[in-house]
Amino acid sequence: MAGWVDSRRDHGGIVFLDLRDYSGVLQLVLAKNLAADIKEEYVVTAQGTIQKRPENMINPDLETGDIELKVEKIKVLAKAEPLPFNVKDLKVSLPTLLDYRPLILRNEKIKAIFKIEEEVIRSFRAIMKEMGFFEFQAPTIVPTITEGGAELFPLKYYKYDAYLAQSPQLYKQILVGVFEKVFSISKAFRAEPSVTTRHLSEYTGLDVEMGFIDSWEELMDDCEKILKGMFDTIKKNCQKELKLLGAEIPEIKSIPRVKMREAQQIIFERTSRDNRQESDLEPEDEKEICSWAKEKEGSEFVFITHYPTKKRPFYTFADPEDPNYTLSFDLLFRGMEVVTGSQRINDYDKLVKNIKDFNLKTKDFDFYLQAFKYGMPPEGGFCFGAERLTKQLLGLENVREASLFPRDMERIDQRLSILKPKKITKHVKKN
Amino acid sequence: MAGWVDSRRDHGGIVFLDLRDYSGVLQLVLAKNLAADIKEEYVVTAQGTIQKRPENMINPDLETGDIELKVEKIKVLAKAEPLPFNVKDLKVSLPTLLDYRPLILRNEKIKAIFKIEEEVIRSFRAIMKEMGFFEFQAPTIVPTITEGGAELFPLKYYKYDAYLAQSPQLYKQILVGVFEKVFSISKAFRAEPSVTTRHLSEYTGLDVEMGFIDSWEELMDDCEKILKGMFDTIKKNCQKELKLLGAEIPEIKSIPRVKMREAQQIIFERTSRDNRQESDLEPEDEKEICSWAKEKEGSEFVFITHYPTKKRPFYTFADPEDPNYTLSFDLLFRGMEVVTGSQRINDYDKLVKNIKDFNLKTKDFDFYLQAFKYGMPPEGGFCFGAERLTKQLLGLENVREASLFPRDMERIDQRLSILKPKKITKHVKKN
Repeated sequence: MAGWVDSRRDHGGIVFLDLRDYSGVLQLVLAKNLAADIKEEYVVTAQGTIQKRPENMINPDLETGDIELKVEKIKVLAKAEPLPFNVKDLKVSLPTLLDYRPLILRNEKIKAIFKIEEEVIRSFRAIMKEMGFFEFQAPTIVPTITEGGAELFPLKYYKYDAYLAQSPQLYKQILVGVFEKVFSISKAFRAEPSVTTRHLSEYTGLDVEMGFIDSWEELMDDCEKILKGMFDTIKKNCQKELKLLGAEIPEIKSIPRVKMREAQQIIFERTSRDNRQESDLEPEDEKEICSWAKEKEGSEFVFITHYPTKKRPFYTFADPEDPNYTLSFDLLFRGMEVVTGSQRINDYDKLVKNIKDFNLKTKDFDFYLQAFKYGMPPEGGFCFGAERLTKQLLGLENVREASLFPRDMERIDQRLSILKPKKITKHVKKN
Repeated sequence: MAGWVDSRRDHGGIVFLDLRDYSGVLQLVLAKNLAADIKEEYVVTAQGTIQKRPENMINPDLETGDIELKVEKIKVLAKAEPLPFNVKDLKVSLPTLLDYRPLILRNEKIKAIFKIEEEVIRSFRAIMKEMGFFEFQAPTIVPTITEGGAELFPLKYYKYDAYLAQSPQLYKQILVGVFEKVFSISKAFRAEPSVTTRHLSEYTGLDVEMGFIDSWEELMDDCEKILKGMFDTIKKNCQKELKLLGAEIPEIKSIPRVKMREAQQIIFERTSRDNRQESDLEPEDEKEICSWAKEKEGSEFVFITHYPTKKRPFYTFADPEDPNYTLSFDLLFRGMEVVTGSQRINDYDKLVKNIKDFNLKTKDFDFYLQAFKYGMPPEGGFCFGAERLTKQLLGLENVREASLFPRDMERIDQRLSILKPKKITKHVKKN
């Protein structure tokens, strides 16, 4: 048996060690002289005899099972320094937890978050393949601004300027022209100039794009179907982790679809907060409309549709019945946006016109525009944020808790102010 | 039926259109007046009756099958401009093909490359999960240099400096301290200041790392096992694409393992080229030793082991029998390196000493070092380059052909000299 010493308990001449490995925890029983200098987080291998534990010694709250190893030989593979705080109960602030991420990830509850997130991503991929989609590796380094310039990370690319991808949007559209139905699981980057509980500078996008759609509502139908498939799989495969975290996977029946203007009216009627002229929903609006969906429709999800044309990117298809609004949607889950999507403009001339109308240079989009110049069917798509979905599913307070190694304006692994002590970062807003 | 017009043939009053979609090609037969203005790459939907094709009209070289659609109604969903060259035979240079990537990817043979690459990655993931490894999403933005500073892409990260990851190395090691056996499929970035047929600035690494190894040779055993599993799957699932590309998946028996110094001696004896004092193998050496392995051992693969300590990164485990060499290996396949790996230093004190010996600052590695400070078992790992593996498997001449959207010092989608005409790029070397 090999693993880490999860805890040590001395009882007279006998020592109990909980030995932790990827599969769980096993109790080791050994004579004190064998365990002389062994401390928590030491890596050891132990030989001995497996035996049944005495009935009255089995603690049903601990997952160490009903067997133990009576140790005859034990060897230390690696030592560990004394722990900076109690890693079992984690009663320290989130920034401190993140400072000690490599150690803290060893906590069973923290580890469970990432086992579930692995399954969020794995189940997404499985259902996309089942639905016949092609998976591609989206590029990270991109030559031009695509979804607004404010949140871009610039990059020195040899002698040229380049950027980190804000999304795989242009590439997934290009590939609809090749494979019809495509998806990617890739990193997206947003230089979010504020510290909030919902933003990461680097996050994992689960992107879907499909051609030959008959109507933009098909996109929401497929989004629902994918989510159902994912949740069924997670529920089945992560029982232990969900129980450990006290999380419940919601039933997805039919998700209500509400126009943004209607949502604003509902919010106004419920709260007297009048945001009916705003062009987007604020975080508190998202929470309120989710409360409404839960109360009225029994749904933990709600689609908000028809966002204003000026608030959506240049490639978004305008509603033929009212071109000031788009055939677009966000999916809100327990108070927060977790999916965004739309039908896209597939007509070459319209797309060129829209690029100009958005004050962008068509020259920068020549490569992308080829896909439309040489024939593109009606198409659309959407994107899930993997960390946000995990956060909402598990009821975590901060999206950083759902990222193994979160990056924000103050942190890449360590706090940047520690690495580079002379520079000072200013908080812009918090929400 | 919906799809792209792959080709048009007029015979008197009758028009034959090959309709292409993700699943293949179907012949449409229609009256000329219905097909008046339909050209190649137009996107259409057609209604009609499926009928058996006349025996003498079936061309076994074309994949249009033995049925056809007699069209009653046809509708154009999107038009296409005249094609810049014949997309069927692709008799243009690679740079031109890459300039027209969104169009060129529609070619059946080019598309087949990426169906196979999708399966290279998918089969890797499947076998890793089968072997009980945890999959994680590796970070792209990193705070420090990890594997030598020369090939780094610097990034403006808010007010700080950061870099694009050269590999997920430090993170996969950290996670061995958590999950024991981990893998990731992630982008790695190398600012390679030359144009060669084997380098990409952005590539897909298939990374493996595992704890509790008894010997570094286990790593090569597992590498062999993974490759066998991948090749079996690809052979089974990509028959059509492999045939189309004339590619053959090699049998993997037992892969020979040769020390670098021995390889240099063999090369010297075979060619009189004396590189026996060099600290690495040149591309021509890699080709030569592969020829040797093929002739002597009947293997298309060969492991080269024991690279010099000074040529491997700081975390590499030195050979206890001769600390000037490391417990490291490269796997060469048909003349080119496709995997690199090693046992790693897992002792905290030794690792700190090595960081200093490599003239790096321990402060920059505080986060990473936590994993070792709090107990790390003996461990090691390796990484496959997905594009290189695909290139070698399919006998492609240039690794760019195995990247959907290749990035190099001259190109991000379009040629950079076109986008930014005032800057001039210089070739440093070619191989």
